[in-house]
Amino acid sequence: MDERVLAHVMREVEAGTADMIQPRYTEIPTFMRRPHRPDMKGVEIGMIGVPFDLGVTNRPGARHGPREIRNQSSMMGWVHHQSGIMPFDLCEVADLGDVRIEHRYSLDEGIAEINAFYEQVVAARVTPLTAGGDHSITYPILKAVGAREPVGLVHIDAHCDTLGEYMGSKFHHGGPFRNAVEAGVLDPTRTVQIGIRGMSEPLWDFSYDSGMRVIHIEEFYDMGISRVIEEARRVVGDGPTYVSFDVDGLDPAYAPGTGTPEVGGLTTFEGQALVRGLCGLNLVGGDVVEVAPPFDPSGVTALVGATMMFEILCVLSEAVSARRTKAA
Amino acid sequence: MDERVLAHVMREVEAGTADMIQPRYTEIPTFMRRPHRPDMKGVEIGMIGVPFDLGVTNRPGARHGPREIRNQSSMMGWVHHQSGIMPFDLCEVADLGDVRIEHRYSLDEGIAEINAFYEQVVAARVTPLTAGGDHSITYPILKAVGAREPVGLVHIDAHCDTLGEYMGSKFHHGGPFRNAVEAGVLDPTRTVQIGIRGMSEPLWDFSYDSGMRVIHIEEFYDMGISRVIEEARRVVGDGPTYVSFDVDGLDPAYAPGTGTPEVGGLTTFEGQALVRGLCGLNLVGGDVVEVAPPFDPSGVTALVGATMMFEILCVLSEAVSARRTKAA
Amino acid sequence: MDERVLAHVMREVEAGTADMIQPRYTEIPTFMRRPHRPDMKGVEIGMIGVPFDLGVTNRPGARHGPREIRNQSSMMGWVHHQSGIMPFDLCEVADLGDVRIEHRYSLDEGIAEINAFYEQVVAARVTPLTAGGDHSITYPILKAVGAREPVGLVHIDAHCDTLGEYMGSKFHHGGPFRNAVEAGVLDPTRTVQIGIRGMSEPLWDFSYDSGMRVIHIEEFYDMGISRVIEEARRVVGDGPTYVSFDVDGLDPAYAPGTGTPEVGGLTTFEGQALVRGLCGLNLVGGDVVEVAPPFDPSGVTALVGATMMFEILCVLSEAVSARRTKAA
Amino acid sequence: MDERVLAHVMREVEAGTADMIQPRYTEIPTFMRRPHRPDMKGVEIGMIGVPFDLGVTNRPGARHGPREIRNQSSMMGWVHHQSGIMPFDLCEVADLGDVRIEHRYSLDEGIAEINAFYEQVVAARVTPLTAGGDHSITYPILKAVGAREPVGLVHIDAHCDTLGEYMGSKFHHGGPFRNAVEAGVLDPTRTVQIGIRGMSEPLWDFSYDSGMRVIHIEEFYDMGISRVIEEARRVVGDGPTYVSFDVDGLDPAYAPGTGTPEVGGLTTFEGQALVRGLCGLNLVGGDVVEVAPPFDPSGVTALVGATMMFEILCVLSEAVSARRTKAA
Amino acid sequence: MDERVLAHVMREVEAGTADMIQPRYTEIPTFMRRPHRPDMKGVEIGMIGVPFDLGVTNRPGARHGPREIRNQSSMMGWVHHQSGIMPFDLCEVADLGDVRIEHRYSLDEGIAEINAFYEQVVAARVTPLTAGGDHSITYPILKAVGAREPVGLVHIDAHCDTLGEYMGSKFHHGGPFRNAVEAGVLDPTRTVQIGIRGMSEPLWDFSYDSGMRVIHIEEFYDMGISRVIEEARRVVGDGPTYVSFDVDGLDPAYAPGTGTPEVGGLTTFEGQALVRGLCGLNLVGGDVVEVAPPFDPSGVTALVGATMMFEILCVLSEAVSARRTKAA
Amino acid sequence: MDERVLAHVMREVEAGTADMIQPRYTEIPTFMRRPHRPDMKGVEIGMIGVPFDLGVTNRPGARHGPREIRNQSSMMGWVHHQSGIMPFDLCEVADLGDVRIEHRYSLDEGIAEINAFYEQVVAARVTPLTAGGDHSITYPILKAVGAREPVGLVHIDAHCDTLGEYMGSKFHHGGPFRNAVEAGVLDPTRTVQIGIRGMSEPLWDFSYDSGMRVIHIEEFYDMGISRVIEEARRVVGDGPTYVSFDVDGLDPAYAPGTGTPEVGGLTTFEGQALVRGLCGLNLVGGDVVEVAPPFDPSGVTALVGATMMFEILCVLSEAVSARRTKAA
Repeated sequence: MDERVLAHVMREVEAGTADMIQPRYTEIPTFMRRPHRPDMKGVEIGMIGVPFDLGVTNRPGARHGPREIRNQSSMMGWVHHQSGIMPFDLCEVADLGDVRIEHRYSLDEGIAEINAFYEQVVAARVTPLTAGGDHSITYPILKAVGAREPVGLVHIDAHCDTLGEYMGSKFHHGGPFRNAVEAGVLDPTRTVQIGIRGMSEPLWDFSYDSGMRVIHIEEFYDMGISRVIEEARRVVGDGPTYVSFDVDGLDPAYAPGTGTPEVGGLTTFEGQALVRGLCGLNLVGGDVVEVAPPFDPSGVTALVGATMMFEILCVLSEAVSARRTKAA
Repeated sequence: MDERVLAHVMREVEAGTADMIQPRYTEIPTFMRRPHRPDMKGVEIGMIGVPFDLGVTNRPGARHGPREIRNQSSMMGWVHHQSGIMPFDLCEVADLGDVRIEHRYSLDEGIAEINAFYEQVVAARVTPLTAGGDHSITYPILKAVGAREPVGLVHIDAHCDTLGEYMGSKFHHGGPFRNAVEAGVLDPTRTVQIGIRGMSEPLWDFSYDSGMRVIHIEEFYDMGISRVIEEARRVVGDGPTYVSFDVDGLDPAYAPGTGTPEVGGLTTFEGQALVRGLCGLNLVGGDVVEVAPPFDPSGVTALVGATMMFEILCVLSEAVSARRTKAA
Repeated sequence: MDERVLAHVMREVEAGTADMIQPRYTEIPTFMRRPHRPDMKGVEIGMIGVPFDLGVTNRPGARHGPREIRNQSSMMGWVHHQSGIMPFDLCEVADLGDVRIEHRYSLDEGIAEINAFYEQVVAARVTPLTAGGDHSITYPILKAVGAREPVGLVHIDAHCDTLGEYMGSKFHHGGPFRNAVEAGVLDPTRTVQIGIRGMSEPLWDFSYDSGMRVIHIEEFYDMGISRVIEEARRVVGDGPTYVSFDVDGLDPAYAPGTGTPEVGGLTTFEGQALVRGLCGLNLVGGDVVEVAPPFDPSGVTALVGATMMFEILCVLSEAVSARRTKAA
Repeated sequence: MDERVLAHVMREVEAGTADMIQPRYTEIPTFMRRPHRPDMKGVEIGMIGVPFDLGVTNRPGARHGPREIRNQSSMMGWVHHQSGIMPFDLCEVADLGDVRIEHRYSLDEGIAEINAFYEQVVAARVTPLTAGGDHSITYPILKAVGAREPVGLVHIDAHCDTLGEYMGSKFHHGGPFRNAVEAGVLDPTRTVQIGIRGMSEPLWDFSYDSGMRVIHIEEFYDMGISRVIEEARRVVGDGPTYVSFDVDGLDPAYAPGTGTPEVGGLTTFEGQALVRGLCGLNLVGGDVVEVAPPFDPSGVTALVGATMMFEILCVLSEAVSARRTKAA
Repeated sequence: MDERVLAHVMREVEAGTADMIQPRYTEIPTFMRRPHRPDMKGVEIGMIGVPFDLGVTNRPGARHGPREIRNQSSMMGWVHHQSGIMPFDLCEVADLGDVRIEHRYSLDEGIAEINAFYEQVVAARVTPLTAGGDHSITYPILKAVGAREPVGLVHIDAHCDTLGEYMGSKFHHGGPFRNAVEAGVLDPTRTVQIGIRGMSEPLWDFSYDSGMRVIHIEEFYDMGISRVIEEARRVVGDGPTYVSFDVDGLDPAYAPGTGTPEVGGLTTFEGQALVRGLCGLNLVGGDVVEVAPPFDPSGVTALVGATMMFEILCVLSEAVSARRTKAA
Repeated sequence: MDERVLAHVMREVEAGTADMIQPRYTEIPTFMRRPHRPDMKGVEIGMIGVPFDLGVTNRPGARHGPREIRNQSSMMGWVHHQSGIMPFDLCEVADLGDVRIEHRYSLDEGIAEINAFYEQVVAARVTPLTAGGDHSITYPILKAVGAREPVGLVHIDAHCDTLGEYMGSKFHHGGPFRNAVEAGVLDPTRTVQIGIRGMSEPLWDFSYDSGMRVIHIEEFYDMGISRVIEEARRVVGDGPTYVSFDVDGLDPAYAPGTGTPEVGGLTTFEGQALVRGLCGLNLVGGDVVEVAPPFDPSGVTALVGATMMFEILCVLSEAVSARRTKAA
């Protein structure tokens, strides 16, 4: 085994946190078998579950996402096979548990409570990596993460999610990024949306009007992945940037377990390549949303969700570590 | 074929409503292949879908119930094999479609809109037979059905559903019958709850305090089904009575596709016998709730839901027909 | 191990037919891991697959029944735990393979070809035990088995299956027993139908008119299983008798994987008890039909089918052995 | 929202046909939530279900296709995200219901009845867009559509489906295009078959001998999708052309719920691109066949079927609209 | 809410262990949402997972049992609805995590490691309640629990599991109780085996020879449940007694997700009644085994496993509490 | 039909081995419906099942692989559609049945028994084509196949499988190729591993140190498939070469039913192209491993396994035939 890896494993064994050498089907599943640290102390990157799906317009079930992603995340390892990044070595990474919500029947109040939790996370100087939940949760997260300075966004999805009020609320899962722009926490000119397609196109005027860069799936295949990555990096630039990965950006062959599947989407390899391409950016948080286990008979979608979290974790840990170094 | 049945079939063929002689897998599925009559004109018993599950405390999915119950309800026939009741011959029965709800993200507002719809149904002198949706929908139905006079209730369920406010709302699926009593539309002393068991027992004080007759599953098996029916009939008496059938009253072996399964429940044969035992009562409406298709890989729960609707329809059509005769 | 069992096993080991001591998930699955003997030589009881479902009126899929029943039948053993019958010790039992059918798209011609095969089976003095396929296959089997003398019938099912022509053919799965009576190979006065219920009741006039004894599921529970068995034995008497077990006679909780499920049916324990109660009758063949694997996500229905075949095999082997002894 | 879209929505709201603004899981599902118009009056494009699978040589189940495609088709929208086509704005589009078939057990008679229905459709000057059913249904459709003039064909499939008689019939799902050529309603020299692969290659001599252009999956990837589209357009030319999309042309990862899956097939993105590439041709009808819900545990195949119908509808409505304009 | 319950909840809220008032789909799942206490300090009843299935003779998968039982066990509550027992109030109950096994590929060594763990549990004076894993794990548990004094046993199962060596080992899941008797830790004359049936009958000589009381499923139904409970209590008497619940004792309709299903078994209601009937016995531990999630598409079997653990926990906590009182 | 194919079919019909013209869902499934020849006489290529999964480190179930692959392999045909190879015409191909293993609970002894079987296969001059089973089985196969001369290897997989001892054994499924090199039966410098990715990267030092050519999935897409094939052919050269295809080399969208899925993998088309690219090499055996049916709800993974066996069979039969010709 690679010496650097071995050294890390040994440190974990000594610290009693080396659950990862146990077989993957054993023990109580935390995210990627990291320690459970609801007190956040000493944590640099906090993995958080938001079991909330009151924002869906079609099939609910994403509230079960965090549990199944945790379950499948036992398959994750210590080192990224392509980049060689060892996130648990670069940063203190823990599972902060789930956001607790008091008002379980109200979309609007739930959104407020999620925001309150993330304000604590930000206050504790923890960089959040979230497993949803439906996409409505990204707005209250961004509201906390972008409070000091509007963030840029790399957004992988079939839908732009910039609709306004619909059926009595503006906090549903089709609108978080409009809400975030209107709240002044997301910079639309530093926002790129990739993989867009399908039946809701007439709803996304706000994306175009506010200056977001929308890359439809057809343009994605025309440009090729390298140029898409270049373009994404150009759009977000050096500023603080958030990554939001909706699994329905992938084709339903790859991620059937989701609420609003749209055929004709990305492969997982392409999704992974996109995330890897963000390495070196000034990343300040990320999420994987819309894994809906009741529609996922083989469990593959939850595995995809866990893997995408790991991909984001690798580039995020690199960024956190870089900022720590720079600050030092 | 039985002459009476044959005559009925012929009448339907002439009227062009005899979809039921087509194979069961064909055509667009309405409830029991009855005509779609959103205008309610001339309808005596209206079958209604309420695709609403914002009241669930655990697994959502009952919003998909009406579609799958409609789908499986093509298996239903013209005549009840045991009682000989022919509901479509006794009454004008139609599918009224689904309740339309404008505020899709708000439990409280949704409840109000459901109520508004059922007030129209009652105003049109249509007796409603509903496919849920979660159990929260029964409160706004009862509020319409019991507006003139509080109704009695035969309630088959694993849970009493008489909890008060919880996590910020009192309209969730654990409380419709308390809400109905408090609104003066349900008479607790004419209410019987059958099949109760499981983990939520400490939450049902209101049932006992208000005078409802609670028959736990253990008492059900001790008494035997005939005496349970007698007791139920004694409790509700001659007054107007509603039937509410939560499929989680059945054992999850019989109805796995539901949000809050409790093992150790009724068989479908017992459930059918209970409903048949209500024949001759002054029934004014009924519902089958908590069919959650995403948790029903074999589709059997939706078939159970459709069959229980048919069982209720038979005793309900007998009651509607008897009232018509009496009124004439 | 029981000495009698041990002796049998040893004989099989020596004969090279002791596949049954291998783990159940290994090897190519024949019915109950018996030798494959398409030539029928020396076979007393032949297990036969009829992968045919052109007779279904609703959900097809029973054509896949023989394969999955064979697969699950590896779970079967050497000795019946309650009766102590050892069928493979009493008789020469083999898997004859599947009926080959040339005209795969024609219900009527398929029925004729199945009949031709069973005439060969009867000519070879093999007693058939069949895995369907849909229930339409029982008519051509009975036509062969009852050719010399009309047989009596113990029929477990949700449906009487005595409808006449429907949608252009009389050979569909809703009519085999009427066809058999009309062909003079089934004696309706020696026929008992058990477990009947559900939506097709108006279609079964022929059963009543021809003198069949119909025991609806309600009467079944009123009488109790012992009296039902007595009644069945009284009806069929001493004459040659066939057993036909449609898995939809069971409740769909026990047998979801079938084409026309009807809720409110028998348990498997009751189904087993019924078959065991036929011990000592003059049985001349049997079948298990309507296992439809595409609707059986857990595989339990195929296991139920295999177990019911084993139950029938036990009472059948006893009968075959008794006739052999008597003839000797 | 785009003004043109908004105007259209407003017109539908006024006309009372705007079911499409309701949530997708509500109401009785017609194809794409269009009005149900069995009388065909004023309909330009009629969406039709043919719940028929007597032509399958392996796994049946496509008879359940129309229901599930209708169910999933609620996910479809008003406007094509890439082409901007608004099919319901261009043409009067309705759901004509299912073809009714009297002889349900006979492949040959069923084929004749399907043809009789489509002759009515053609006589009513309705352009048909069909959801199968197995591929055998395309022959009786073509016989009606190509009656006045043989049509050209763009055929996406794993199989050429040009076999002759097999197991007693020539009307099975492996032969519709040979039947159509022999009936003089399909011009083989204006026929292109795309995605061909797999185990049945030796059966397709007729394709080669009659002059069809066969593009195997290997040639598809060698040429690239643009050149394949060019070639398809060159082959069919300006004449009336039909589009037949068998979902087994897609890889089973994308469309597992089908009767004869062949690995190594198209992605849905490629399938969509092929259909879009037909824009501007003189299209006179289309179908999507071989969606078999019993083999589709996640429901994705039915969604793919609905989406491909929408893709065909877009290019078809463009053609119908163009012909109307030209005629005017 | 019942005052006693309320008081308990308040104490838990104050102690910060009241996860149970959160919605059931949230947070990292421990057994019944109890605290995770791998150090065992202060624990009276320890719930333990043994993710081990090297002992199966047919379908593996029970290694995934502890995770899924934990997942479903979130559905459990504070109070038993029938007995009123509040186990978490009576005793200090915690989740000890999973047994860690070093030799993951060796049945024999795994058994030894499991035993070593339970010796620590016993040494810590913790009463174990285990979720398997296959039935092979009960031998090493009994070896620890019965070390000071042989225990009696109430064993619910389809199989006696008293076979000796088979295919090279005696530690497989068909033999734990023979191993335990031979090791002197189980008293066969104080052992009752309930629900026995099926294909393996010839393998259970040891049960009869050693004096175990075997109640086949037929005798179970003949006696009725009350007399079975009496008989079980008579057999085990006052001595220390262990409860082992193999979910294949239930009918596969109730517990399809298991390795060796046998049709014709107990209902969950009967299984629950059996366990409740043990109240007041001198119980020293228990287990629920053979939940195999890969064969449990609806998740019901894991829910049954969790519920049976809760049933055992109730009678076990009563016994532990009684012994504490007595010792005091 | 192609004359060469027709001639072959006729020969088979005469020889009574033409099961392949029967419908695919009929009869007892052998591999590709070839004759069952456990005596190996006259067999040139023997298809063998190894129902063994004691070597898995995560999800077991591959022991059920051979049955389901046999089942799905009925879909295979006589001729390869692209290469035109007719394997059953080129060589005598049969199903040898499953390897029988006496010590079913011991990984190490099982491995020895598998090896003993393959030594008989090699001694009988039969070229083996194996369906696993987990990947641990490839070591004992190679030990037999490479006994006279170390073989080269084309290995398609997500994992290098060159780990040493882990959790008490070195024979688990993560190490067969290291074992083979250490046993002197595999030449690491003539080994190419394709598709490698994911979480276990730190475990594969042995691959690099021993000189294997590792092509990660990223390099695969960078090179393109033609150059990968060239490189693979260069590495293995003219010497005897074995092909090992682990279905987890494919993306889980294409092969969900496997024990250690890794997202971001090959498509089936790419997998097929790789195997076809080996035509003309000196191939001496092959296997397809890690199909785990319990995790494969749609059955597609078993179909993929069967198809990959057919692809390997084509290039293998070509090699066997070429050696026979050369030897003659």
